[in-house]
Amino acid sequence: MIDPKSQVKIIAKGLPASPGAAVGKVVLTAEDAERAADKGEKVILVRAETSPEDIGGMNAAQGILTARGGMTSHAAVVARGMGKCCVAGCGAINVNEVQKYFTVNDLVVKEGEYITLNGTTGEVMLGQAPLVTPELTGDFGIFMKWVDEYRKLGVRTNADTSHDSEVARKFGAEGIGLCRTEHMFFAPERISAVREMILADDTEGRKKALVKLLPMQKSDFIEIFRVMKGLPVTIRLLDPPLHEFLPHAEEDIRALAASTEVPVEKLKARNKALEEFNPMLGHRGCRLGVTYPEIYEMQVRAIMEAACELSKQKIKIIPEIMIPLIGHVNELRMMRELTVKTADEVQKRYNTKVSYTVGTMIELPRAAITADEIAAYADFYSFGTNDLTQTAFGLSRDDAGRFLPYYIEKGILENDPFVTLDQKGIGVLMKIGVEKGRKVKKHMKMGICGEHGGDPQSVEFCHKIGLDYVSCSPYRVPIARLAAAQSSLKEKSKKDLSRTTV
Amino acid sequence: MIDPKSQVKIIAKGLPASPGAAVGKVVLTAEDAERAADKGEKVILVRAETSPEDIGGMNAAQGILTARGGMTSHAAVVARGMGKCCVAGCGAINVNEVQKYFTVNDLVVKEGEYITLNGTTGEVMLGQAPLVTPELTGDFGIFMKWVDEYRKLGVRTNADTSHDSEVARKFGAEGIGLCRTEHMFFAPERISAVREMILADDTEGRKKALVKLLPMQKSDFIEIFRVMKGLPVTIRLLDPPLHEFLPHAEEDIRALAASTEVPVEKLKARNKALEEFNPMLGHRGCRLGVTYPEIYEMQVRAIMEAACELSKQKIKIIPEIMIPLIGHVNELRMMRELTVKTADEVQKRYNTKVSYTVGTMIELPRAAITADEIAAYADFYSFGTNDLTQTAFGLSRDDAGRFLPYYIEKGILENDPFVTLDQKGIGVLMKIGVEKGRKVKKHMKMGICGEHGGDPQSVEFCHKIGLDYVSCSPYRVPIARLAAAQSSLKEKSKKDLSRTTV
Repeated sequence: MIDPKSQVKIIAKGLPASPGAAVGKVVLTAEDAERAADKGEKVILVRAETSPEDIGGMNAAQGILTARGGMTSHAAVVARGMGKCCVAGCGAINVNEVQKYFTVNDLVVKEGEYITLNGTTGEVMLGQAPLVTPELTGDFGIFMKWVDEYRKLGVRTNADTSHDSEVARKFGAEGIGLCRTEHMFFAPERISAVREMILADDTEGRKKALVKLLPMQKSDFIEIFRVMKGLPVTIRLLDPPLHEFLPHAEEDIRALAASTEVPVEKLKARNKALEEFNPMLGHRGCRLGVTYPEIYEMQVRAIMEAACELSKQKIKIIPEIMIPLIGHVNELRMMRELTVKTADEVQKRYNTKVSYTVGTMIELPRAAITADEIAAYADFYSFGTNDLTQTAFGLSRDDAGRFLPYYIEKGILENDPFVTLDQKGIGVLMKIGVEKGRKVKKHMKMGICGEHGGDPQSVEFCHKIGLDYVSCSPYRVPIARLAAAQSSLKEKSKKDLSRTTV
Repeated sequence: MIDPKSQVKIIAKGLPASPGAAVGKVVLTAEDAERAADKGEKVILVRAETSPEDIGGMNAAQGILTARGGMTSHAAVVARGMGKCCVAGCGAINVNEVQKYFTVNDLVVKEGEYITLNGTTGEVMLGQAPLVTPELTGDFGIFMKWVDEYRKLGVRTNADTSHDSEVARKFGAEGIGLCRTEHMFFAPERISAVREMILADDTEGRKKALVKLLPMQKSDFIEIFRVMKGLPVTIRLLDPPLHEFLPHAEEDIRALAASTEVPVEKLKARNKALEEFNPMLGHRGCRLGVTYPEIYEMQVRAIMEAACELSKQKIKIIPEIMIPLIGHVNELRMMRELTVKTADEVQKRYNTKVSYTVGTMIELPRAAITADEIAAYADFYSFGTNDLTQTAFGLSRDDAGRFLPYYIEKGILENDPFVTLDQKGIGVLMKIGVEKGRKVKKHMKMGICGEHGGDPQSVEFCHKIGLDYVSCSPYRVPIARLAAAQSSLKEKSKKDLSRTTV
């Protein structure tokens, strides 16, 4: 947020499309944003309006400012999804993309000049306002304590790094609901080992590369576990399709060929072989674990070695190992066996015991429908409502930009189903999953780790269907806590009311 | 089938992987198969084993012969899906792809030589055996009459041409359950008008191109309606994403640029703009109708003009207009309004009445879950179990080749869910759809038009959940009729049994 004590000059006001604050140099195209970010510069992307081609630039920018579009415009929807500050529909500005400036009345703001956005109020400021990290102290701290007295729903966070975990813990997160291990794979010093694994011709070759990854993954887990000591940490095993880790631009392929001594032609052939028509519905999630068990085995080993080492230091660790994209109980049965076998080995080797659990995401309609069968091999369920929305609606989030804004504008859909949970469709599948799962395991722990976990309306729904916790991005933890308390109070007042009238 | 009177030399025997018979010249690569087919030649694709890259060649060939792989190998699964004759796992043959021949013991069969396959027995023959169309006469005819006395389930066919419709009607089809209009778009003389529509800059441009398509679509419908007179014809409006209609190879783009006078650069940009990450979950089905209503309007006009003209000739026409990929009731509400408005106009213009119905596919999990809401605007439901399997399993049929065979081999899945309906998952969604739909409209007509409609086990399931009909490819109509009768008899004997024991 902008330091409340700062003196800033407000030059325009638009819609508060995505909260938070951002400071950066003005850029007028997505390409410029990406180029500047590559050089380590902080920029604000200013556009007449954004379109799907701007995604890369939006991601690279600190914040986004658009002249046109409402609260459900492309810029607004995407920015909220990214957790990025955005002021949309700021009609007072006039964007000249070609000559690289924008105007507000007589004021001309050129590329490279600093501006500041306040996504919570919609204000646009000239210059660099000082930003401060909002803290949960004073009145706010007292208020949040009251909130916690009333809520029943636990609130966790989605965090892949120790930094995010720390932020979330400060905001009151009671554990990690989703730690995505693949983000760790992308770091420059690791990606080469990941690529070596993908390019290997056989299991032996893959294992050799995985040995290099093991200590890196382990050290990540040690850091995260330390920050989260005493609290549960749900770690999801590798999820995305392998081709996401290979380079695709000609120059990157050549660079990789040079560094790995794998011929360019072979690299291209491998890329081609891994290409998919519908990667979202392809060789990913537990399908990777089933076909290349050595990958998941390495990940489980890294988790358990980290846990055992900290446990020996008397640090309390609660690892929850989560298998993604289960569609059939047999997948989970196999992956659970692999996990338990590996975890047992590690514990034996360290001569220590760490209690851990193995669970799965419910993120495919078939998993929700067969949640009773799957429950036999799961200690917990986490509803992956991003993918559940994509599959049950038959709607690719990456492609929906071409028609979803029109759908919302015309009232065909009331809300963007990726922002606010679609209770009538996706919600019913969740309910089926909860009921079927708890029919088999009465007290099975269940949560949500889709982005809906930070949306107040969706949090209320999660409360109603009896989830144990929601998990959301670190900065949304306080709002999720508040929404959870409001849900409890709402329920209570309804009950009181019905008692009175009866 | 092979003429039973013919004298043929059997040179080897493999697995009867996909029934039927095929005669053609030997080709050893998928590219050769495609090239030969383009020249109008009939070929048999002979491979050590097939992989997803061979799909084009498999499609172009009359039949497929492989040296390796079982009944659920890639070749077998894909061939059955295509309804194409296949002999798989024929271990006696040795394939030399580079030198373009295969051997069986001492016999060398070179590229270009004729062979004949019998996919029903697994036999491979040298030379061209005479083929005959199996006819439902004699004992078979009598038997099928008995069959029809017992079955309750109707049997329709999936047919896009008058030829297929004729074949199916001879086999006893009681109507068309799925007529895919897009197949009509691909004919060489039409594709240019389709492309003109896609390349148009605005609604006006699209309408101009659609005017050219209207008479062609109309004449197709007239032909099909004539063949199917007196029987219902379910016509599905445009379903695939538009980029499927544009050329992608450099030379094809240049050719299109030359013929349309649209600059190559613009063509490429349009291709790029229409590209999707997950086309299966993208801008297709009713989403096209919602965003470009003029397309569906043209199609409805073509259907109703055809119907009105034939109706004036006293030919009885029963058109059922089907809207694909409905995920939300509001989509169907809009598309139904458009359909009814257009149909009314046409009938007024022709001064005649044709009774028609408007329904939808239930092919997305969300549609099944909200089938009660959707029922308000639907006269019938057709379960599109291909897409329902893809979305509920989160499994792209085009990409599953990389792990699905492994899943079946390891017993993770009992069957290929694209061949035999997954009753525990997809079947439960269908049941929910049937129950919710009929809660609102008690006697609502419901059928299935996914490929499962021709699989005996799946047909039995459709009988059990109370569908009115199954629809399958023309040659599977007799087997579907038989499976339907067996389902009735099974049910009856169970009832009889329970009466006896009680």
